[in-house]
Amino acid sequence: MQSPIKKLAVLTSGGDSPGMNAAIRSVVRTCAYMDVEVMAIYRGYQGMIEGDFVLFNARSVNNIINKGGTILKSARCQEFRTPEGRKKAHEQLTRAGIDGFVVIGGDGSFRGASIFHKEFGTPVIGIPGTIDNDIFGTQYTLGFDTALNTVVEAIDKIRDTASSHSRLFFVEVMGRDVGHIALNAGVAAGAEEILIPEENLGLDRLLDSLKRSKKSGKSSSIVVVAEGDKTGKNVFELKEYVEKNLPVYDVRVSVLGHIQRGGVPTAFDRVLASRMGVRAVEGILEGKTNLMVGIMDNQIVFTPIDEAIKGHTKIDRELIRVSDIMTI
Amino acid sequence: MQSPIKKLAVLTSGGDSPGMNAAIRSVVRTCAYMDVEVMAIYRGYQGMIEGDFVLFNARSVNNIINKGGTILKSARCQEFRTPEGRKKAHEQLTRAGIDGFVVIGGDGSFRGASIFHKEFGTPVIGIPGTIDNDIFGTQYTLGFDTALNTVVEAIDKIRDTASSHSRLFFVEVMGRDVGHIALNAGVAAGAEEILIPEENLGLDRLLDSLKRSKKSGKSSSIVVVAEGDKTGKNVFELKEYVEKNLPVYDVRVSVLGHIQRGGVPTAFDRVLASRMGVRAVEGILEGKTNLMVGIMDNQIVFTPIDEAIKGHTKIDRELIRVSDIMTI
Amino acid sequence: MQSPIKKLAVLTSGGDSPGMNAAIRSVVRTCAYMDVEVMAIYRGYQGMIEGDFVLFNARSVNNIINKGGTILKSARCQEFRTPEGRKKAHEQLTRAGIDGFVVIGGDGSFRGASIFHKEFGTPVIGIPGTIDNDIFGTQYTLGFDTALNTVVEAIDKIRDTASSHSRLFFVEVMGRDVGHIALNAGVAAGAEEILIPEENLGLDRLLDSLKRSKKSGKSSSIVVVAEGDKTGKNVFELKEYVEKNLPVYDVRVSVLGHIQRGGVPTAFDRVLASRMGVRAVEGILEGKTNLMVGIMDNQIVFTPIDEAIKGHTKIDRELIRVSDIMTI
Amino acid sequence: MQSPIKKLAVLTSGGDSPGMNAAIRSVVRTCAYMDVEVMAIYRGYQGMIEGDFVLFNARSVNNIINKGGTILKSARCQEFRTPEGRKKAHEQLTRAGIDGFVVIGGDGSFRGASIFHKEFGTPVIGIPGTIDNDIFGTQYTLGFDTALNTVVEAIDKIRDTASSHSRLFFVEVMGRDVGHIALNAGVAAGAEEILIPEENLGLDRLLDSLKRSKKSGKSSSIVVVAEGDKTGKNVFELKEYVEKNLPVYDVRVSVLGHIQRGGVPTAFDRVLASRMGVRAVEGILEGKTNLMVGIMDNQIVFTPIDEAIKGHTKIDRELIRVSDIMTI
Repeated sequence: MQSPIKKLAVLTSGGDSPGMNAAIRSVVRTCAYMDVEVMAIYRGYQGMIEGDFVLFNARSVNNIINKGGTILKSARCQEFRTPEGRKKAHEQLTRAGIDGFVVIGGDGSFRGASIFHKEFGTPVIGIPGTIDNDIFGTQYTLGFDTALNTVVEAIDKIRDTASSHSRLFFVEVMGRDVGHIALNAGVAAGAEEILIPEENLGLDRLLDSLKRSKKSGKSSSIVVVAEGDKTGKNVFELKEYVEKNLPVYDVRVSVLGHIQRGGVPTAFDRVLASRMGVRAVEGILEGKTNLMVGIMDNQIVFTPIDEAIKGHTKIDRELIRVSDIMTI
Repeated sequence: MQSPIKKLAVLTSGGDSPGMNAAIRSVVRTCAYMDVEVMAIYRGYQGMIEGDFVLFNARSVNNIINKGGTILKSARCQEFRTPEGRKKAHEQLTRAGIDGFVVIGGDGSFRGASIFHKEFGTPVIGIPGTIDNDIFGTQYTLGFDTALNTVVEAIDKIRDTASSHSRLFFVEVMGRDVGHIALNAGVAAGAEEILIPEENLGLDRLLDSLKRSKKSGKSSSIVVVAEGDKTGKNVFELKEYVEKNLPVYDVRVSVLGHIQRGGVPTAFDRVLASRMGVRAVEGILEGKTNLMVGIMDNQIVFTPIDEAIKGHTKIDRELIRVSDIMTI
Repeated sequence: MQSPIKKLAVLTSGGDSPGMNAAIRSVVRTCAYMDVEVMAIYRGYQGMIEGDFVLFNARSVNNIINKGGTILKSARCQEFRTPEGRKKAHEQLTRAGIDGFVVIGGDGSFRGASIFHKEFGTPVIGIPGTIDNDIFGTQYTLGFDTALNTVVEAIDKIRDTASSHSRLFFVEVMGRDVGHIALNAGVAAGAEEILIPEENLGLDRLLDSLKRSKKSGKSSSIVVVAEGDKTGKNVFELKEYVEKNLPVYDVRVSVLGHIQRGGVPTAFDRVLASRMGVRAVEGILEGKTNLMVGIMDNQIVFTPIDEAIKGHTKIDRELIRVSDIMTI
Repeated sequence: MQSPIKKLAVLTSGGDSPGMNAAIRSVVRTCAYMDVEVMAIYRGYQGMIEGDFVLFNARSVNNIINKGGTILKSARCQEFRTPEGRKKAHEQLTRAGIDGFVVIGGDGSFRGASIFHKEFGTPVIGIPGTIDNDIFGTQYTLGFDTALNTVVEAIDKIRDTASSHSRLFFVEVMGRDVGHIALNAGVAAGAEEILIPEENLGLDRLLDSLKRSKKSGKSSSIVVVAEGDKTGKNVFELKEYVEKNLPVYDVRVSVLGHIQRGGVPTAFDRVLASRMGVRAVEGILEGKTNLMVGIMDNQIVFTPIDEAIKGHTKIDRELIRVSDIMTI
């Protein structure tokens, strides 16, 4: 494989997610293996604009595979949204002799990469790093499996208290536009009801479900609510609503918040990151560009970045059905 | 050891805490060992009033030592605060032939036990089960060590994100009247500043500390805030205040909430529960009453319940100093 | 969906694996949802022979989704391998009015189920529950993801010590015939070399790899060894061999052993168990029989049991390549 | 506090233990706070002999409080046991202008420190870092609490399998000379019997206990065995012995091994490390020397190193009694 590419760069951008470090390590080591130089760009596109680059070798990424967050730091960057910002970034890349880059991030980061690629022709491959699992072209994003387990462990703890006190808990989890975390965590944690952005079951159904649950002899219940749920009520309003309309329950709220983004990545996320990093570098060396690596049916595949950012992975309807059956 | 006591009861009351099940197991098995019958009272004092009793034997408590929550369930009970309620409870105990009881709970539960003891002379021993570590007469309450580790693990996760994004986080932890969780978790998690109910350092000092931290080259910071902190501001108001007065920081808030109460108890809490349960039963058989078992300087000791509920364990001033030094 | 089946049974058989309880729960609740009676068979085929059955309802499986092991207990049963044993089992099923059963276990359990089905025509569906991931017809067996994470967490701990002392560790993990745990854990934990039953790289290559690693500046190394590796040496012999032939290393051995089978199931295993349980019951009600449910490319599919037990899921060659690249 | 000491050093020595990094951080930051220079010595006494020193500041120890192992690396050093080796070490310290040092390690490391102090008069304070809890003068050594929780979590997993298969497990844990881990873990994990170096209950009592346990209706059992137990049999021989003399059990063995040394330190170990580090530096600046910091009855105290290495902390007889009662 002869490639005109002699030097690549890698950066993380947008919200951090567990597995980003494993992906950085994979990109860096694959470059070393392929005899391609690799520069780390710090602080995402901001660092690209400022030329915050460090030459890495295989040893630079020792002992990071199991660390949460990103050693390259991340940032959201307004300046990169402007033609001037991107021009500066391009000049920095040129000055450093960088022939292309791998960006690890979510759809915002990919949007920037795609525009940059169109303006300057720089080869770029994306690795989907976000806990939300909301990127089209991959069945799993990096960090989703870890975040899911964090949520499930948290709900297991909450259930201890819920059971001891016969309470109903509304647990808010991340997911502004998609309900993947909520749905999977809800099934895994045995939630009574799951409220996701993809469908609005309505408040009546919620009440019915809780009534049925009470009648069936369950003494405690967990309702998992994605941030972006479509009932029109947030978790605190849901609590009030249920207390008013179904006063048999002692209702509590828990907003899991930022613990969902961090933590030691699971085995799944580490393996996925390693696989994606290899293919990202291989792809760019093979002349591929403006693509995202993803995992579909256990294969690492490429999807045009422009498609990846257009849609979301659909929620699994079968899993909604499984959830309904489990809560009998 | 000849004792007139032939049948004891055990109950959990108030907020649940990890280690309660291990304490129940210890009480039940110690009774079995001492050839004393033991009845489990469900749902705290409410179950005592309603006669919700089940005869237990050593096998009834198999495989619960590592479970969070309480298999006997818990409740706060208004009726037990009335003389009529307590009279009913006493009738139920008498009818069931119960000669005394062990109550696992916090100061509210102990208050009830003490009044009950004074009214009816029933032998009673308390085991301090609460995550807050706020009971006088014991250096550790059951559940404190587990809650502390839960908080520290959560902050470790939050720090991954804080470091990746150079952010300042306010993390609210439990502790209405005492700052034990906040202070210990803050030291263990390397927090920049710790706000506790026991002392009000003032908002100026907070700003100073954050400024100094920024200047010293730290890119991210965690401030741990006990629920009952005395700044007059909650975590959301603190965020606004800092954003306004120290705009260099990107500030976020995380309220850990109910995950702090549940979860698999740590080794420390399981051993402590086992030790306390043994001494509680032994004490009551030796004729002791209206006492609480506690651990002081690694010894299980007894303290009059009336003293235990009067004060709180003082915050460790040395640890505040350690925290100050660590945040240089 | 009208089905002649009015009463089903569920059992766990062979070695236990995390997620079995979640699968039991799913089978039981799906039966309840479909208005089919369900009996739990205790202690695998032994319990089937002895008629150790209990009628379950939806509430019988409360709070087990997050428990390791199997509440139905499991056993290996010699008697079921004899025609007489199976005849007794069939009589017990008939007497109890059981029209078919779902068996959760590995290939030994499936073999028994298939023979039984052929002899008596009893409808039967298998759910692959084993940590080894060695069943053909499913890309993931129940418990594999949990075991993998247990192994990776253990190696993370071992690496702390390996790094601190510049040591080489041989870590033996489960896998007599297949190397899925070893390969995936090795990649996820950043192992230097991975020895699996599927290929014998030879001891020379191992030494070469360790030499190269030392030269490249790594101070510590982990080698993951599947039980059934084909070097002809077990981990203790490998230690001796390396100490003799490459005396620069301080070598240690760790055999992870039985901790790999237990533990709280991961989110992945709980969701998978829930999905498989639903399809197993649905399948049997639709008239399917002598099949195993599996997950292929994120879909729950059926495979004839006789095929499932014939082969193993192949090791992922791409992942071997990823591992080679990562250890540069 | 005026002190002639202007520059201190810190090193870790002997087997690593969780919390060592937190102690390093505390020593370094306390020096910074006290305006004393601090040098990190790498690889224990070996690095002292070779002059492997690096000047640290408060930021050098960022983000290590929650890391297992030791960033300074550790080693056992033969050369330091010779007068020549220690002479070289002293020359290195002198050349670097180091006025005294804090050594974090176990009794071997303290022995070396004490001899060194006597030969050269160099001020030295020890911090007890070892998982075994076998140092006189402190009720807790750094790493003990973490190791204990690691062991208990491992046994919890093993119990899942033991219960599912009605098996008896012998679980070997660390502790050559002392049984603190075994005894505490045994109580916390609900072990049937605990074999420790401090007392030989004899094999007859073991058989009796297992028989009684079987009769009492327990289907599975865990026996925790310290490495240095005094039955004269190791875990594998114990398995054979029980299989021969009590054939009702299906017996298995698990040797936990090196996972016990690593891992993220618990809150307790992090707080303890922080407190000890502060007092170690303060002590040496106050003119104290050849002492070890320890925690007794929740106070940080000093003990002459020569006393600390003479004996072991006694096993808690009360806890043995608690264990006996719990296994009824």
